[in-house]
Amino acid sequence: MLQFCLVGAGFIGPLHAANIAARSDARLTWVVDLDTRAGDALARKHGARATADLDEALRDPAVGAVLICTPPRTHAAIIERAARAGKAIFCEKPVDLDLARVADCAKVVADTHTPFHVGFNRRYDPSHRALFDAMRNGEIGRPEMLVLSSRDPEISPPDYVAAMPYGIFYDTMIHDFDMVRWLTADEPVEVFARTACMLDAKENPHRDPDTAMAVLKMAGGALVHVNSSFRAVYGYDQRIEAFGEKGMLISRNHQPTGLERHDASGIRQDPLLRFFIERYAESYVRELADFVEAVADHRAPSITLEDGRRALQVAEAAMTSAKSGAAVAIGS
Amino acid sequence: MLQFCLVGAGFIGPLHAANIAARSDARLTWVVDLDTRAGDALARKHGARATADLDEALRDPAVGAVLICTPPRTHAAIIERAARAGKAIFCEKPVDLDLARVADCAKVVADTHTPFHVGFNRRYDPSHRALFDAMRNGEIGRPEMLVLSSRDPEISPPDYVAAMPYGIFYDTMIHDFDMVRWLTADEPVEVFARTACMLDAKENPHRDPDTAMAVLKMAGGALVHVNSSFRAVYGYDQRIEAFGEKGMLISRNHQPTGLERHDASGIRQDPLLRFFIERYAESYVRELADFVEAVADHRAPSITLEDGRRALQVAEAAMTSAKSGAAVAIGS
Amino acid sequence: MLQFCLVGAGFIGPLHAANIAARSDARLTWVVDLDTRAGDALARKHGARATADLDEALRDPAVGAVLICTPPRTHAAIIERAARAGKAIFCEKPVDLDLARVADCAKVVADTHTPFHVGFNRRYDPSHRALFDAMRNGEIGRPEMLVLSSRDPEISPPDYVAAMPYGIFYDTMIHDFDMVRWLTADEPVEVFARTACMLDAKENPHRDPDTAMAVLKMAGGALVHVNSSFRAVYGYDQRIEAFGEKGMLISRNHQPTGLERHDASGIRQDPLLRFFIERYAESYVRELADFVEAVADHRAPSITLEDGRRALQVAEAAMTSAKSGAAVAIGS
Amino acid sequence: MLQFCLVGAGFIGPLHAANIAARSDARLTWVVDLDTRAGDALARKHGARATADLDEALRDPAVGAVLICTPPRTHAAIIERAARAGKAIFCEKPVDLDLARVADCAKVVADTHTPFHVGFNRRYDPSHRALFDAMRNGEIGRPEMLVLSSRDPEISPPDYVAAMPYGIFYDTMIHDFDMVRWLTADEPVEVFARTACMLDAKENPHRDPDTAMAVLKMAGGALVHVNSSFRAVYGYDQRIEAFGEKGMLISRNHQPTGLERHDASGIRQDPLLRFFIERYAESYVRELADFVEAVADHRAPSITLEDGRRALQVAEAAMTSAKSGAAVAIGS
Repeated sequence: MLQFCLVGAGFIGPLHAANIAARSDARLTWVVDLDTRAGDALARKHGARATADLDEALRDPAVGAVLICTPPRTHAAIIERAARAGKAIFCEKPVDLDLARVADCAKVVADTHTPFHVGFNRRYDPSHRALFDAMRNGEIGRPEMLVLSSRDPEISPPDYVAAMPYGIFYDTMIHDFDMVRWLTADEPVEVFARTACMLDAKENPHRDPDTAMAVLKMAGGALVHVNSSFRAVYGYDQRIEAFGEKGMLISRNHQPTGLERHDASGIRQDPLLRFFIERYAESYVRELADFVEAVADHRAPSITLEDGRRALQVAEAAMTSAKSGAAVAIGS
Repeated sequence: MLQFCLVGAGFIGPLHAANIAARSDARLTWVVDLDTRAGDALARKHGARATADLDEALRDPAVGAVLICTPPRTHAAIIERAARAGKAIFCEKPVDLDLARVADCAKVVADTHTPFHVGFNRRYDPSHRALFDAMRNGEIGRPEMLVLSSRDPEISPPDYVAAMPYGIFYDTMIHDFDMVRWLTADEPVEVFARTACMLDAKENPHRDPDTAMAVLKMAGGALVHVNSSFRAVYGYDQRIEAFGEKGMLISRNHQPTGLERHDASGIRQDPLLRFFIERYAESYVRELADFVEAVADHRAPSITLEDGRRALQVAEAAMTSAKSGAAVAIGS
Repeated sequence: MLQFCLVGAGFIGPLHAANIAARSDARLTWVVDLDTRAGDALARKHGARATADLDEALRDPAVGAVLICTPPRTHAAIIERAARAGKAIFCEKPVDLDLARVADCAKVVADTHTPFHVGFNRRYDPSHRALFDAMRNGEIGRPEMLVLSSRDPEISPPDYVAAMPYGIFYDTMIHDFDMVRWLTADEPVEVFARTACMLDAKENPHRDPDTAMAVLKMAGGALVHVNSSFRAVYGYDQRIEAFGEKGMLISRNHQPTGLERHDASGIRQDPLLRFFIERYAESYVRELADFVEAVADHRAPSITLEDGRRALQVAEAAMTSAKSGAAVAIGS
Repeated sequence: MLQFCLVGAGFIGPLHAANIAARSDARLTWVVDLDTRAGDALARKHGARATADLDEALRDPAVGAVLICTPPRTHAAIIERAARAGKAIFCEKPVDLDLARVADCAKVVADTHTPFHVGFNRRYDPSHRALFDAMRNGEIGRPEMLVLSSRDPEISPPDYVAAMPYGIFYDTMIHDFDMVRWLTADEPVEVFARTACMLDAKENPHRDPDTAMAVLKMAGGALVHVNSSFRAVYGYDQRIEAFGEKGMLISRNHQPTGLERHDASGIRQDPLLRFFIERYAESYVRELADFVEAVADHRAPSITLEDGRRALQVAEAAMTSAKSGAAVAIGS
């Protein structure tokens, strides 16, 4: 029975809490949030204790793992404290917004031999996983081009946007940068990116990019395209396409039902699932299972801090490219 | 160069005339129609001569083939006159509405050694043909069930309906009865059918069935379902499904374009093609090519008068079943 | 907290047990099975008690509901005992194989004011439900034709087949007969059915029908077709099509992933989900939720014993038709 | 009756010749080719005269239009001679490979008031046209992102590749650059491109790029991605996706039939149509019709020499970007 301390009761916290509660080999023991009302409510729902003091929870020897889903800028400090407290760590992406800070964390995590997992949940989606398996099985041979469409139905609230400029790279495309690395088992060596502000000033008051395209070059020669938007009015658009010498694989969008409506105006199907909570519901469940089982089996969790650092590095290079107008080389 | 006498300038006559005109090895020489205005207009369009007197056209030794697309009740007499005049015959389905009359025709056609083809054009549709080929290749093994949806977007005009009661069997499902025989290379031995009048009195003043379902049993044991309607408001619905011991084949509906529209209300595609003129455009072209080439090569045309008789027999049995409420055995 | 006594640890019992366990407002308290090994194992897994003696469990005042998933011939007796013990009842379909026996049960259930639910789980499938909602919203207007394909990937074991002759109607199509009643809010008044034995003697030693087609006539005039097979080698084929004056609705098959593979041989997608456990996983969860909430809210469960009787009546009429070769009227 | 002089009997010449022959208002009168065998053969097939001397054909006063489908480097000279001879011109893309040479041509064409059409046939494809119409109707509002996949099943022969380095931009993507301008009614102001050689030395001995990705920025702010390959083993992959503030439009790939095969390994559909001859058969027919009708109606043909120049300008900028590694501004 792995007991969890969940840090961050907002946004995706309740989803993780419910997934923990649904497992027979895990339990939510602590909820930590500075907003004590939110923390209390979530803790009460799952029979856990709430606190605003992370150290109080970390001192509890029953706690085996810390699940971090606070805003990105707080991740590094929490990681370091949890690692020093000897807890296994499941941290939502991005690890941090600053590469140097991530390097610090990495040192602490390594020195403390902390089991660590970054929450790139898309790797656990059954459709994307089937595409991964097909690539590993050599179905398309050497990959030559990847095209990822990664579009959100809405922009984040203004304060969230203000706290993470160029979030289209750091918060959204960072998933795709991770997927590219995972799918190709290769590293990007260059990125070119362009952005635009398409939303109006009311929706996007900070004029942070809400539309972006990137082209990556992989060490092995493959070319990659990623595009993102913060207003896919038709739903959460999540497609991956891998093209290689022997064929093409496509992981398509998902719909809530299999209903088709035929009338004189044409054939209509359901809109796409609305957002990540719906689209990736199963991937979050599978990701948690993998983490819990890894800790139980004393094996390293699947997505490393180095994976987190690499994806962040691409995001930073993409921002630099978008600002400068030039392609940017990505170091190792 | 095969010269055609087209009998019947209405409805599907112009389509056949245009297909003849588009071939370099065929020519439309005569158009025969009692309605001299319609006949003249069609003849003029293709540089042919028009007449209301079939015999005048049949006396022309340049005419090698007669294409009959008049109303069904006139087919038999025209077939016999054309056969006795030594012309090859392409006759639209049904051969006639009366089995005894068809038997008479068959005798004349046989005695005169007339090349004869019945216009079951659906056999020439590329999608249905691909399904046929897959069955012949053994892809689904022994056929066990067939399901055919055969739905028109509208009912025929009242006088047309009055001239052919139970046209849903004699005019529409007769195509499906032929498809079933062709696809399975087997004969139906029993049919059960049910009909309904769903259109209102204005649309269907004669209260002739506008909706029908049939279940057939084949000599080889396979079960077959056919359904038809005269008001598929979403377009001409033409699907065939063949289920066997090794799998299933589906010939899907066709759409005019490959456009998908995604918005908050869902995903929309084009309506189906409107009716047989659009849906089976290519099959009519291919069918004519097959007939012209058969005549040129002195081989028998592909769809025999016996094929026409068999399909008619099933239509008659379906009508009898619908009237009596009992399943009806089909003779040989 | 509704405490359940589950009767029948085989087949679908473990699925219901797991769904009960996953709810925070329900608990599995007893597992009753004559096969004590199976009963013990399932009980142990969920922290319940096992017994071979139904009355022992029924005497437990903590038990609020009995979930019956034993073989069909045992349902009636269990229903009557549970009803007399004052428990709410969730009974898998069919209620029984004998209409007179169902009438007896109905009397007991009515006299004891027992909350009763028949497990026609397909009503809870999100895709079928969306089709139902669209019909209720009048999207296709008056229904004119329904086509249901209901095909299993395999035949049941020989002893199961022996215990329920014509299971293709009593066990499989009975779901479709229920769906038709539910979707149309109308009653069938006539059925015609045909069957075949397509499997070989090794797979189907009792030569019980493994392939069937039926045509139903509804009181309101609509025509319905249902087809079933026990060897859909491509997976569990579950499609519903509703055709009406304003259009058509289709509830399509489901696939496990959204992966498309493109190569020189064509475009390939996943096979269908294998069987009902996978295909209807969510419908079982939703059905249980509805039952638990109905009991908690003191409202009548959604699918009545009369629903169970009606569907059984159609199944019996279909068998009679298949045996006699004649259409059979269905009483009220 | 518009009489054509076709220049270039190879490759796409026979397709244009057949399309001319199929029209009742056009005739193929001359075929000009230095390879007299190819020219003679094509001329004979359509009852035209053949010559290796362009001027001989241009002197024929009956000739109203010249259709140029020779290799790109010969286009400019032929255009100028045809324009000076007073013939209407239909010229396959690209107009030339050199922008200065295109400017010269443009002057001659303007000075001679020559009706001129560039063969960007994709504008006439019914699916792409439906997407265009939907954009013009405002269905997606302001365009924000376009994604075009434009992949050939094979690389051109080595001598063809040698004659047109970076053909992936000049010969293939040039179509997409034109589509982008046409669909958005906007001009690209910047392009970034990356290429790769993925084919082996035997297939691609000149090591000319066979794989490419580009990102364009439009004057109006929209971002555009185009990707191309010369080895789509699964067929000719031609997709366009337009994303805007109100939704998304997709013009999908086309398949030869509507057959679906279901078996234990999954669901299979036909491969895509093989190459442009099959995929764009209808667009070539419609394009020719538009040109013939424009000449007959004394209106300017639809796709201007300026359209040809603009697309070439983007191709050149893409090549410059691919060579330099920097984004390249596109002049006006």
